[in-house]
Order: sequence, then C-alpha cells, then structure tokens
Amino acid sequence: MTHPHSAPARAAAFLIALGGLMTNDAVPARAAAAPAPAPVERIVAAALADSSAFALLADLCDTAGSRLNGSEGQRRAVAWALDRLRAGGLDGVRAEPLTVPHWVRGRESCTLLEPYEQPLTLLGLGGSVGTPPGGITAEVLAVRDFDELEARAAEAAGRLVLFDPPWEGYGKTVQYRGRGAVAAARHGAVGCLIRSVTDRSLATPHTGIMRYDKGDTIPRIPAAALSVEDAALLTRLARRGPVRVRLEMGAAQLPDAPSANVVANLTGRELPDEIVLAGAHLDSWDAGCGAHDDGAGCAIVMEAVLLLKRLDLAPRRTLRVVLFADEEMTQQGGRGYARDHAGELPRHRAALECDSGGFAPAGFTVQADSATVARFAALAAPLAPLGADAVTPGGGGVDISFLADAGVPLIGHRVHGEHYFDVHHSPADTLDKVDPADLQRNVAAVAALLWLIAEAP
Amino acid sequence: MTHPHSAPARAAAFLIALGGLMTNDAVPARAAAAPAPAPVERIVAAALADSSAFALLADLCDTAGSRLNGSEGQRRAVAWALDRLRAGGLDGVRAEPLTVPHWVRGRESCTLLEPYEQPLTLLGLGGSVGTPPGGITAEVLAVRDFDELEARAAEAAGRLVLFDPPWEGYGKTVQYRGRGAVAAARHGAVGCLIRSVTDRSLATPHTGIMRYDKGDTIPRIPAAALSVEDAALLTRLARRGPVRVRLEMGAAQLPDAPSANVVANLTGRELPDEIVLAGAHLDSWDAGCGAHDDGAGCAIVMEAVLLLKRLDLAPRRTLRVVLFADEEMTQQGGRGYARDHAGELPRHRAALECDSGGFAPAGFTVQADSATVARFAALAAPLAPLGADAVTPGGGGVDISFLADAGVPLIGHRVHGEHYFDVHHSPADTLDKVDPADLQRNVAAVAALLWLIAEAP
Repeated sequence: MTHPHSAPARAAAFLIALGGLMTNDAVPARAAAAPAPAPVERIVAAALADSSAFALLADLCDTAGSRLNGSEGQRRAVAWALDRLRAGGLDGVRAEPLTVPHWVRGRESCTLLEPYEQPLTLLGLGGSVGTPPGGITAEVLAVRDFDELEARAAEAAGRLVLFDPPWEGYGKTVQYRGRGAVAAARHGAVGCLIRSVTDRSLATPHTGIMRYDKGDTIPRIPAAALSVEDAALLTRLARRGPVRVRLEMGAAQLPDAPSANVVANLTGRELPDEIVLAGAHLDSWDAGCGAHDDGAGCAIVMEAVLLLKRLDLAPRRTLRVVLFADEEMTQQGGRGYARDHAGELPRHRAALECDSGGFAPAGFTVQADSATVARFAALAAPLAPLGADAVTPGGGGVDISFLADAGVPLIGHRVHGEHYFDVHHSPADTLDKVDPADLQRNVAAVAALLWLIAEAP
Repeated sequence: MTHPHSAPARAAAFLIALGGLMTNDAVPARAAAAPAPAPVERIVAAALADSSAFALLADLCDTAGSRLNGSEGQRRAVAWALDRLRAGGLDGVRAEPLTVPHWVRGRESCTLLEPYEQPLTLLGLGGSVGTPPGGITAEVLAVRDFDELEARAAEAAGRLVLFDPPWEGYGKTVQYRGRGAVAAARHGAVGCLIRSVTDRSLATPHTGIMRYDKGDTIPRIPAAALSVEDAALLTRLARRGPVRVRLEMGAAQLPDAPSANVVANLTGRELPDEIVLAGAHLDSWDAGCGAHDDGAGCAIVMEAVLLLKRLDLAPRRTLRVVLFADEEMTQQGGRGYARDHAGELPRHRAALECDSGGFAPAGFTVQADSATVARFAALAAPLAPLGADAVTPGGGGVDISFLADAGVPLIGHRVHGEHYFDVHHSPADTLDKVDPADLQRNVAAVAALLWLIAEAP
C-alpha cells in the first residue's frame, strides 16, 4: 500500500550495505569459508544500479492488463513475454501450447435488500457457476466457520450461507473460499458468500479459485467473496433480524481454451544439457493486473536471466526461464511442463519459483533432502547484504511442485509479504503497490543464486 | 484500517495514565493553577469505563445504513436519533424541518475500452449530472493538474479529462473534485474523471460534492472519481497511446426533499437560557455508512451529553445537541439552525462541532478572539491525560460556521486523523474502522470540555 517514493534512496542504502560484498577483503563472515566469486559481485551491483525489473513489470501490466485463463490479456502476455525474451537474446524462446479451463466472470452484483437496500462489494469466486438471470434472492445465514454451519445445518436450506471467519492467516482462512460452497450446498443452501481472504481492507473484494464436489452429487451453487466490511455488516445485521440479499452472477465455464507456457534458455557454456529452472506464472486473476501475483515473479526471473545475458555471463549449466500458464486454476502449466519435459527432468539440477510477490527479499525455502538444503544455504550466504540469505526447508511453489517426483530440488523465493494479502487476487494488485527498489533487490538475489547454482561444481 | 482488537488494553492504559486526574493530589502541572472540579473526574472515569459511544455508533450504522440527503437511510437516522435522545431523558427533543437537495446516484460504471477492455472502479461525484443512456464513450486526456489542462486546452474538446494530481493533502487535492468539471467543460470536455481524493487506496473509490458554474454558461458535464490505481493506470496508458473509456452514470437531481436537524437539550440548572451547543452532522455519503464521517461525531456528542444525564450532572447552562442535516451538500442544516434560532444566538456561549472522525483525540481548535482562545485552552488543560488538551486557533466546523456572524465562539474537535482520508467518502468508511477505545476517549474529552464551558463563571 505504500508508494515507491523512496526507491532511489533505498537503492543507495543497499549499495552502501553491500560494500562488504563489493570488495573481496570485506566479505561477510558467513561467506568467508567460500568467498563469493567475482561474477556475483557484478550481478548484484548491476541489478541494484538500474530499475529494469520494474520497467519490465510495468510494461507487462500495461501491455497485457489482467491475464486470466482464456482471456485476451493472457494472449497478449504470452506474445509480450516471447518478444521480450527474444529481444533480450535468450535461446530457444518458445511457447509450449497447452489447454486451460476457461471461466468467465460476466456481470455480477450483490445487493442487500432487507433490512434495507444497499449495494455490496463483491467478486465472484473463480470456477463458480452463475446465477439464473435476475439472480438469487434469499435470506442470509451468517456463520463464523464450518463448525457453526454444522451446528446450524437445519437453517441452511434455501439460504445464502455467509462464512465470515476471522483472519487466521491465509492457509487457514482460504479454506472457506475453496470448500465453502460444497459445505453450504450439502445442507441445501442456494448460494455461498465468504468474507474476502485478507486481514486488511478498504472495501476491497478478493477473488480466487473455489472447488465443487468432484462426484457431482452435491449441487453446484454460486459462490462469491464480499469485502471484509460487507461481510461484517451482514453478520451484525443477521444478529438483529432477517437479512435478505440478491446475488447476480453471470459466471460461466466455457470450453477449454488454448494457452501456453513460455520457455527460454540462457545456454550453459560447459553443461548445456543440465538445467536450472527459474519459474513464475504468467496468468493472473481478472481483478487488478496481478502486479504482485505473479507479475513480480515473472519480472524477477525474466530480468535475473536477462541481466546475466546483458553482463555476458554464460553459466556452466543452462538457465531456463519458464513462465507457467494456469497457476490460478488447475496448474495445466506446471503439469504440462513436467509431462512434456519428462525426459529432461533427470538433468534438472534445481527449479526455483518466484510466486510470493515483489516485496523486500527474505530468502528461500528448499524442498529437498537435508544435504541439498544445506548446500543451497551455503550458496546463498553471499546474499546476506540483500537480506536474502535465509534458507529454510519448505515448499518450492505450485507450478514446480510437479517436478518433485522426478527428484528435482525445489526452491521457493520468499519475501517480506506482510502486506501481500492486502492486495492478493483483488483489484488493488496493481503496479503502484510494487517498490522498484524491492524488485531489483529480488533480481539481485535470484540472479546471484541462479548463477551460483548453475556454476556449482 | 486497524481493527479494534486492543481496545480493552488501551482503555486500561488510559485509566492508569489518568491516575493524576483521578486523585486531586496529583493533578498534572498544567492544570495545577485551576484544579479540575470533581465532576470532570467522574465524567472522564465514566466515559472510559464503558463503550456506549461505540454501541451507539454501531446502532446508527446498522439501523440507518448510509444517510444521503433525501434517502430512506437519512429518514431512518432522524427517527433513530430522536428515539435515542428521548430515551436518554434529554429535554425538548425535536426534529426541526428543512429542505435539502436530493441527488441520486443511479447505476454507474466506467469501462476501459482501448487499448483493451477492463472494468474501472469509480464513484460518481455528488451533484453530477448523469450521462445519456448508454453512456459517453470518449478518448481520455490525462492531466496532472489545472496547469497541465490549460497548457493542453486545445486537446480537451470532445474528451474525458482525467485529473490525476499527486496527493498534497486534502485541502489542495480536493480542488479537482470541486472544480474539475467546470475547468474541463470550459475547454469542451464531455466528462471529467478525477483521482480519488486520498493518499492510500486498496482499489477504493471516494465520492464527495462537486460544483457547476453558477452562471450556467459552462456546460454541465458528468464527473466521477476513479480509484487511485485506475487513475494511475489511465495516466500511464495515455503516455503510450490512445485511451478510450465508456462512462455511464444514472445520476440525477430530483426535487428538493424534506429533512431535519435533530435538537435536544440538557437543561441548565442556573442559566437555562444560555446555550453551549454540541454539534455533528447526521447525513453521510451513500458509500459505506459514514462511520467516521460523521457517525463518530454524532456518537461522540450524543454520548457526551447522555453521559452527563446518566451521571445526573446538570450543568449551569443548557447543553444542546444538534445533529445537522445536509453537511455534505449545501449545509441547509447549519444555515437553517442559524436562521431559525437567530433570536437565541446571542445567548449561545459556545458551539462545538465533531466532524473530524473518531480517531484518538488530539485537542480542539477555536475560532474566536485570542482571549477566548486562551480561556478555552485553560479550560481544556485537565484533558491532558486524554491527549486532548491542545487548543489552537482554527475553524470550528462547517455546520456551526453559520453562527460566527452572531459572535458565537466556535470550537472544532480534532483527532489524530492520519488515516481519515483512507476511508473518507468511500465504501470503506465502515464501523470496523472505528476503535471503541478511541471513541470513548473522545467522549471523555468532549463531555468534560462541554461541562467545563457550561459551568464556567
């Protein structure tokens, strides 16, 4: 939510902090056992000295707009990425075609009718069915959580169930987005509303994927997120008396649409068949322009590899940029890459994904055996001046998770994301929320780590 | 934007800080010259010990909803206020009828059409004309400020002019809301868009009043506010090429509607004809429920006087609560009170208005001669433990400004309003943004000051 006014000042401060890394005689203590090779210093200095990643992100956001599966924006984004990667001189730049679900939002609205009329702020959930024309008008059953729904199951039939859980972190709270509609429909509800999955709100609705029962024995009811404010309002009003709402959603599932992963290489100078993958996802929700989710990730991995190319630094192994399709819905991009490149996977030395937003870097998580985690931790030690040297065991990212079965070590990019869910999947996930200096620090950290992995003996 | 999780803890801390005030032998130094009378201690302790003001505000917000001139919500609010003031045992509780402008928003939308299609987040400005059915489709001329518009005046004809000024504080930035449409229409623009008048945004549109040229020589063009994010998007896109937008607004000015000021007295025990007025405005914009603007002010002045009544503290002079109509548009409430009570105004010893939001108290401004400012500053000294003793020269408030000509000293209630404009005139001006503990501290400060003024020799 802050604007990047202080970017130049912050960049200067980081360059000063990096003094220790810039001169070999003052390498930080943790890295002393394995002094950073000169290229890392060049990479970091070059990354911090410009704002190419922000320019790249701005160009993506403004050229493509939002990038939902099947949309014109998603097609513009693929064309844009191919163009930028080719213009940057990478090798084998290509779109690898695949098919993705094609859900469209249509027009939607939610209106409080009783105790009085008032428009409510909503975003339908991805994958939801629409309502009949004219919408659904029903009384609201406001519950805090699944337990309260079960306790009041007899009241749910014919109602719109509102889940208004407190924020208890994304992982816990997002369950209502994913499973709320099934839980409500099981008891005869005609629709499902949820409190947007966020802690802070300025009347901001947040979308995201929802799921229906695969067995199709439970009716598919429409599902939408209200702003935190409006969910709280309905909860309070429901304590006072009947609350009636009209929900209209023009959502529809169309036939699957063509899409593509975008792939590009910086070919290795000694071991070109060995691959270090740097991924992010190019699709986004249709609210805002996915500046943090995952435009920032795309800009970081693209710029990290393009920077090495500009510096004429060819790594021992091949660095491969992959911009995945369809992370937000069914991960056809991640699945497709693992399938189409199955023969190559044994030669993937690592796969890193940036999908945590473009905030200040915090380090990396590694999904691998403990020796590999330790090895990557040692490699990341020179990133201490960037605040990016913390390496802990943890997941790599949704798109690269499909490489785990092939034994590829997975690396997740971590940032100081305290404000990530303020904007996540909302119309506020826009360029102004990204700090150019933070983005360049991430480029510095990711480019340096990719280089070190690609160079490792 | 914070939620009031810590309210009880904060209330406890303030009670401890107030220790000096609670016992006469430890009165703060500034107040030593004029020890606080015992009733002030009772008032402050009672105010901080409960959460009646928040309950009152919640009841207003949930019973009435938003309270735009001429709306059902405004009528519900008047009935609610009369009921609460009567139930609280005040005297002469009455609605004083008057007539207010009746503007309705209707359906509205703004859609980016070129370079690509995308919905934009908007709120029409109060008082704006609507568009023809089907809306206005035109190219956008994005300018930073009035100077840039003048420099590019030749480009404005047939365009939608977007004013996208940086935030430079409310007083400066709000000019584009007030005068933007006239400035744009003067050069042949067909509509006016402005960046919402706020510093921070999570895709949050902010409305507010706009004005047309009174001479009616300049065409009346529709005017709306975009979210900060969407204004920035259009500005960036306009640097790249043509930007085309469709603006649809169903706004209309209906015949003037009946409304009322709500007035109630706590009759003075010695000088019942002398009046100390405590005012706020009961109307709000139609987005959110005007929890801070000015539900909080209503709750503070109502609860301040109701608290004295509950404590059975009858002041020497009469304390009068006035909840004004139509602050947001043409101030018929303030004007009407001054007109209808002209004969009484010489006996108004002071008028205080709360219309700065319900954040932590900061003190008061006084619009009067310097001796009167100094006198009120001395009276406010015992409020130091509440953080409410700072008294500086300054305006009192829009509604009471009409009493200035009669020589009534005007007092404005000040708060720590750093986040006021985050929510002001937006759908985020909701109950969850108000901290019950802050509200009670304001009640304590205002009740104590009203008491001290009403008691003064």
